[in-house]
This record gives sequence, structure tokens and C-alpha cells, in this order.
Amino acid sequence: MLILKHLPVASFSENIAYINRNCSAYKADDINALVKIEIHGGVRTIYAFLQIVDDDTVVAPNQLALNNEAFEQINLPEGAKVSISVSPTPPSINSIARKIAGNILTSGEYSAIVNDIVSKRYSNLDIASFLVASGSFMSAPEVLSLTEAMVGDKLIHWDNENIVVDCHCLGGVPGNKTDIIVTAIVAAYGLPMPKTASYSLTSCAGVADTFSVLAHVDVDEKELLRLVTENRGAIVSYNNLDICPASKLIAQVERQIGITQHEHIAASILAIKMAAGITHLLIDIPVGPKSRIKSTNEAMRLRKLMEYVGDMLSMEIDVVITDGSEPIGFGVGAAFEARDVIKVLKNAEDAPQDLREKSLFLAGRVLEFDPKMRGGQGYLVAKEILESGRALETLNNIIKAQGKASQPKIGKFTRDICANTSGVVESIDNARINKIGVLAGAGQYAGAGIDLFKKVGDTVEQGEPLYRIYACNSTDFAFANSIVDAYTGYEITDDSVESQDEP
Amino acid sequence: MLILKHLPVASFSENIAYINRNCSAYKADDINALVKIEIHGGVRTIYAFLQIVDDDTVVAPNQLALNNEAFEQINLPEGAKVSISVSPTPPSINSIARKIAGNILTSGEYSAIVNDIVSKRYSNLDIASFLVASGSFMSAPEVLSLTEAMVGDKLIHWDNENIVVDCHCLGGVPGNKTDIIVTAIVAAYGLPMPKTASYSLTSCAGVADTFSVLAHVDVDEKELLRLVTENRGAIVSYNNLDICPASKLIAQVERQIGITQHEHIAASILAIKMAAGITHLLIDIPVGPKSRIKSTNEAMRLRKLMEYVGDMLSMEIDVVITDGSEPIGFGVGAAFEARDVIKVLKNAEDAPQDLREKSLFLAGRVLEFDPKMRGGQGYLVAKEILESGRALETLNNIIKAQGKASQPKIGKFTRDICANTSGVVESIDNARINKIGVLAGAGQYAGAGIDLFKKVGDTVEQGEPLYRIYACNSTDFAFANSIVDAYTGYEITDDSVESQDEP
Repeated sequence: MLILKHLPVASFSENIAYINRNCSAYKADDINALVKIEIHGGVRTIYAFLQIVDDDTVVAPNQLALNNEAFEQINLPEGAKVSISVSPTPPSINSIARKIAGNILTSGEYSAIVNDIVSKRYSNLDIASFLVASGSFMSAPEVLSLTEAMVGDKLIHWDNENIVVDCHCLGGVPGNKTDIIVTAIVAAYGLPMPKTASYSLTSCAGVADTFSVLAHVDVDEKELLRLVTENRGAIVSYNNLDICPASKLIAQVERQIGITQHEHIAASILAIKMAAGITHLLIDIPVGPKSRIKSTNEAMRLRKLMEYVGDMLSMEIDVVITDGSEPIGFGVGAAFEARDVIKVLKNAEDAPQDLREKSLFLAGRVLEFDPKMRGGQGYLVAKEILESGRALETLNNIIKAQGKASQPKIGKFTRDICANTSGVVESIDNARINKIGVLAGAGQYAGAGIDLFKKVGDTVEQGEPLYRIYACNSTDFAFANSIVDAYTGYEITDDSVESQDEP
Repeated sequence: MLILKHLPVASFSENIAYINRNCSAYKADDINALVKIEIHGGVRTIYAFLQIVDDDTVVAPNQLALNNEAFEQINLPEGAKVSISVSPTPPSINSIARKIAGNILTSGEYSAIVNDIVSKRYSNLDIASFLVASGSFMSAPEVLSLTEAMVGDKLIHWDNENIVVDCHCLGGVPGNKTDIIVTAIVAAYGLPMPKTASYSLTSCAGVADTFSVLAHVDVDEKELLRLVTENRGAIVSYNNLDICPASKLIAQVERQIGITQHEHIAASILAIKMAAGITHLLIDIPVGPKSRIKSTNEAMRLRKLMEYVGDMLSMEIDVVITDGSEPIGFGVGAAFEARDVIKVLKNAEDAPQDLREKSLFLAGRVLEFDPKMRGGQGYLVAKEILESGRALETLNNIIKAQGKASQPKIGKFTRDICANTSGVVESIDNARINKIGVLAGAGQYAGAGIDLFKKVGDTVEQGEPLYRIYACNSTDFAFANSIVDAYTGYEITDDSVESQDEP
């Protein structure tokens, strides 16, 4: 028996167990021995990956230390007695080898893989292997199998509703916070919309980050049911809901390996929405050369795939393909995006028109899920709701019900990035703007990010600011500065040069 | 600036950096922030993966702690001042996405990937992604590109030799320690054979483990050159030689994900042998239903692939496909296999004949690399060398030159596994025997393993011992016992039942 210790290390969702090289219960003379162990304590068994420690103060020979993730999962106090044993390789690992060899896996195999992921029998390496192996080719029925497996046991039930709507934007476009405006309009109209939002993984702000600037988003299922009953709408973090655990674990690994396949995106989105009890889902696929989806053909394939899976799961899916060629609105980063959202809802004169128009378009599509809505009228109804101020009023009610958040501190470290030539903004590189923003701390600090002063088609003078970077500390500020000079993300067509070329 | 600390944690070849959540130089409020960092100190920059710690005694806010791997690589004393910065994603990661999408990668791309692996710009997750992505399909020219990239800069030169031979067995068959006997015979004949051997990764004993029972195997390049000059042969650990670093890093990850593709096996073996300066290489592919290579067709494809790569690298390759249907010899595990080897070399009456015959066959093939050898005479020459005692004498010289090892302790915890029926041994499951041995501690302790009393074709009485398990401590003994009863790995045809069936 070993004595349990909590070593407070955060390791990106993986369970890690630390034992001393001279461990009294297990001889770890050779690091090449056992890697994956089962830890038995109390009523539950958890799985963890072993690291060997040579420092008795970190973990003594009679101790077993667990990192944050594992300690939370085992749910025992420090000092508890635990034993360890060898963890057999889960048989579903063989399915990964079968997938690498080009086979179509059965729904039983996907189910076994997802179960092993959720019970932490897979290491992050195993999850990465599965993602890459299945990423190179999955048939549509396989994506369906994966989706069904990922939905899991816990479903949110909306007993009194015939239709429960949501809207999901695929991302890759900075500043694209249409979902909050859409929720406000749709809830004001009266369709129930429990928007389950994500925090940023690789972007400057997820919808959960942006709405966190305005209200609390970490609520449980019971609270979500109450909020939607009360206001017809809510915008909450899906991470805090006890649904779809596989998708959370998979997303962590996808982020680390930086590789995301369409098949997994489709399965993950649809599984989360199924588990959240959504009956009618609008999916927005922005297409742009520097967006996540780069061509219309690619978007079309993804559309068909999601439609197929949705049909098989009896979920009504409407997929729209939109322009993702440049950032939407002016703000990039939670606080700046929240500001844009409020401006649109307030019908402010300086509200970003692209954000307003796209939100109306999407809200109109969601409204048309209502059987009572006449075809083609959604946009006009959405516009009326926005212009009348009812959308703003509804959002204020939602914010009040979820609990108003305190104002975030806007980054003190700022720098204006200026045009090095006069001309017209030809293009803005989404991926670059996102990267500069992330390095400046966006996604981590609500007050960090980028404020765009110029959009595509705007004329600029040499030396005029294109955008301003905001960082909350000097380290992040230095990170952003270290890459921005090499390439600002803006392409400016130099008119003067062109006129010289034409005599 | 942060103050360097060594946190003695062994993490399977990955560099890990630990910072305090309240780190004075970098605000790590959110674990979703930066993952991969560059650490600058002295003249060198290393890459590491960040974990966030909440315990000031493990890492204080003004410290940066590095695990064993990273601390060794940065090569600075504790207390040194270091700074950190964001590490850009290596561009070669894009090639992994291209590979997932089914593209043929260029040799430049393989070179970039291998360079990034060696410089630790890849996490183990990235390496796993690469292995799985390339594992599903690699053209023969791609395997060549990968091999060339893996060879690396450091080559061992054998200036005074025209022919330098080696023999590599693909493994998957317990007890297959032919290489040591082959080396003894070939060196006795006079061909230079610097056998670069591996420690066990997933088996009960690598050749390096087994020979460690007899002599020291961790020598450097200079020593290896001296040993082979002196005795024409040496058996050393390739891990200790400063060659082919990519293959070591890749092997660690392969072991953890439990997935090995033929293309990677081919590239890794040939790269190591190229770097070791081998000109003529014999490769033994044992085929068996429970061996690593399961069918003759599979073996044939691997043979052609290795022949192609060998030809392009101007290395002479002879591939033989052998019987891998059951364990070879009686001993499984370093001490037991070493005993078998010595019995064969001593021409002992109770020497395992299968090990002897296979060793003679392989040695004969290696000898035929010698242009002076008449075709077909290799086996007879090998047999004469073995029977005359010259092979034993040469091995004793090699052991003396490398330094005799101290006798290992044979496991005190033993259990005989007995036949539950009378009959004839129909088959022995290599994978099962290997697994039981590994759980008993083989691969980790030289004195742990399995001693087989019965081989395929032997008759057994009910209750008669089939094999004996040896473990060096109670934990390992319990691990092995926990699985052996469910399935011993032996299939016994019950003759009495058959005779009842035939009236």
C-alpha cells in the first residue's frame, strides 16, 4: 500500500502518477518498465501514467503522488491508502491499428474507443493516435458511429419544448461573435435557445470568453433549465455542463497536436448539441483562404457530412456557408468583441455593420426553424427585433439572470501597428491576426487582444494605424511584438505604385 | 529571468518545464495558455512543454524547474538564470497534416520532421501524430527519405575494413537470442561484426539485456572501434552510442502507443545500421501467427521494402524469413536466455537445438557475405567453428574485452504453471508468453522471466509443469499471477478426448 499525496501539477487533462524510484511497493529501477497503472483506493479505480521521481521531498518512497487531474478523479483525501497494479492495454487500441491499416471500424469499435477515452484508459498519446489514424479517412457512417459514441449517457431533457434551437459557428474568423446577438434575437422572439459555448482553445476568444465579460457562464444543468424557462435563452459554458466528456478530452489533444480533421469537428459539434438536447441546429461554416475552412468545396463536403449525421440522429440541421475572408467587426479578444456585440444590440451608429448583417442573417435562419414562420421572413423579423431594442432588452435580462460579470481590465500595454505604405487594404490574414492576439494574451485575459481600425477596402495613409495591440503584462506584450514586425497580417495595395506603372 | 532548478522527474524522453502558477516572469493564470516554450540560458536554447505547479516548494514563483531530460539537455547548473519565450509551431507540423490528407511527402519534408524531432521541437504527441499519419501509407521512396533523414550526422567509420557485417532479428519471438551466437561464430571466422543491440522495449529481453548478463555493453564509439579491432566482434548497446538520435526518440513513443508500422521498423533498423557503418546486413524476419510479422506475404512486403532502401543506400542486405511460430530455446528473460546461449556455445547435450540450428543458419548466411566464401558453404563453416569450441573461445575473449558482468540474482518468487490436461503441446502463444514474462519483471530485471519445460510437439501429462515463472519481487510476481491463470499461452491437444471420439 502507498500513501496518497496531491502534487499540484496541471498537465493538460492527463492523469499522472509519480512514484519514487525507490518506491516501497513497486520497484521502479528501470523507467522502461510499467507505464500505465491502475490505482485502487476506496471504491474506485482510476488510470494514470507513471513518472519516476528521484526527490524524496516531491514524493517519498512510501507515497504515490497524483497530479491535479488524477487527484480530482480519485476523490480521496491525502494520506489515504492506495494500491497500484498493472493496467492492461485496452483492447480498443487494436482498432486504431485496424484504422491505420485502412479498415472501416464498426460502431462497436467507436463505442469502445470513446468509453476507454472517457474512463482515462487512453493516454493523450493514445488519443492522438486515434485522431490521426481516423483523421486520414472516415466514412460518413463511421462519423455517425463516433458521434453516437461521443454523445454519452447524460442528456439534457427539455420536457416542455417541441423545438430547442442553437447556432454554432465553426470558427477560424477572429471577432466572429454573432452567436450572442443571435441568441438575444431568437430568445426575444420566443424560441428556446440554450447556447452552449466554448472557451477559447486556439482563438483569441470563444463565445464563452466573450460572454464572460458580460455575465457568468459557468452554470450547471439545473440552472440552465431554469434560465431558459425564464428568458427563452442563455449563453453558458459547455465545459461546466456534465455532458459529452469525450469531446472535452479530445479537444485538449487536438489543440496540442494542432491538427483538426473535419470528421472530428462534425462528430464533436453534433455530439455536444445532441447531449444538450438541441432539436434544430444552424451551423455556420465561414470560408476564407486564411480561415479554418479554405474552399467552398471543402465546406460543401463538411455540410453534406453534417447533414447526413444530423438526419440519422433525427436532428434538424441547416448549414450555411458564409464569407470568412477577413475578421468580423473591429474587436478581437473577449472585451473588444463584447463591446462590438453591445454596439450592434444598441443599434449604435459606429456598430460594425458586417457583424450586424451576419447576425441578422443567421438569426433569420434560426427563426425559420419555427413552423409558424413564413418562409423567407426570418431576416425581416430578426431585423425588427434588433431595431426595436427588444434584442438588447432580452440580452440584459439574460445577463441579469446569469449574474452580471465585473468589468475586465483592458490591457495597459498597447502598440499601434501602422501602414508602411499608402493604399487600399487588400486583405487581412485571419490566422495571423489571431496569432498576434493570442500571443498578446487574448484567450487568456479578457482585456488582451486587438482592435482593428481598418478593414478590407478601406484606404490608408502611410503611417496611419491599422490596429492596436492590447496586452495585460509585459511578457505577453513582448511575445506579440516579437512576431508582429515580420508580418502584420495586412496586405495593402500601393495605389501610387500602380499609377506610376500606368503612364 | 527565472532561476533554474532541477526537478528529478523522468518523463520518457520528453522535456518538461514546470513553472509556478504565480510565476514572476510569465503569468500562467490559465492553463490553456502557452504550451511549448523555448528556454534560453547560456549559449543554447532548448524546447520544453509547460506544466503549471501550485506548490511553491516544488517550484517557486521565481524558478523554472526542468525534468531530467530537459535539465540534461540545457546543461547548466541549478541556480543559473534562464529566460523563456514562446516557441513557434515548427513548420514541419504542416507536413503531418499533408500526410493525413494522403500526400506523398518529399525528402526535404522528412528531413525537416526528423530535425525537429531531434531538436525536441516535437512533443511526444507530435511524434505520435507523425508516426500514425505516416504509418497508414508510405511509398518506398518515402521510407528511403525517412531512413536517410534518421541516419543523422554522426557516422561510425571503419577505415581499415572493406566489409563490416551485422545481423538483426526483427523480434516478436521470445528467447530469440541468436545474435550473440552469430556474433561469436562470425568474429571467430574473422569478419568484423560490431553488433549494435537494443535493450528491451516491449519484450522480455533485448540482445543488450541478455548480453549484459555476461559483459558490459554500454561503451562509446572509440571503445567499440578498439573492441572490434581486437576481437573482430563486439556486442554493445546502441543506446549508448551517439548515433541515430531520432530512432531512439521515435522508439520511446512507439512503445507508449503500442503501434509499430513496418515502414518505421525498416527505416529505423536501416538508419541505425547505416550510422554504425555496417556494409553488409542480414535481417531475420520470423513469421508466426503470434509473432510480430504474422504472414509470409507481410514478411515478403517488408523484405522488398528493406531491399529497396538498402540498395539505394548502397548497403548489402540479405533478408531471411524464418519460423517464428513458437519461442526459441527454453529461457525467456535475460539470465535464462544467456544460459541457453552459453549451452549452445559449449555444445552442451541439453542445449536447445532450435536455437543452435537457427544460429548456425544465420551465421552461415552472414559468413557468405565474405567474397572468399564459396556459395553454400557458410552453414558448414559456421558449424565447424561452433563444434570446435572456437566460437565459445571468441565469445569469452569478447566478454573479457568488454568487461565481465556480475552474476544476476535469479528471481526468488517462482511458480510452476502446469498442464490442465494430458496430451501434446499444439501451440505456444509468443505474445502471451512475452506478456507474462514482462509482467514478472523480465526486461527490467535480468533474473526475472520464464523457463519453458515443454515445446510444441512435446507430450505432457496432466499436472506436469509447462513452464516456471521467475519474479524478483512480490509486486511483479502478483502482476504475472494476475493474468496467467486466465490463459497460460499453451494449447494442448487432448489425445484421450480424441481417442474417445474415434470408436
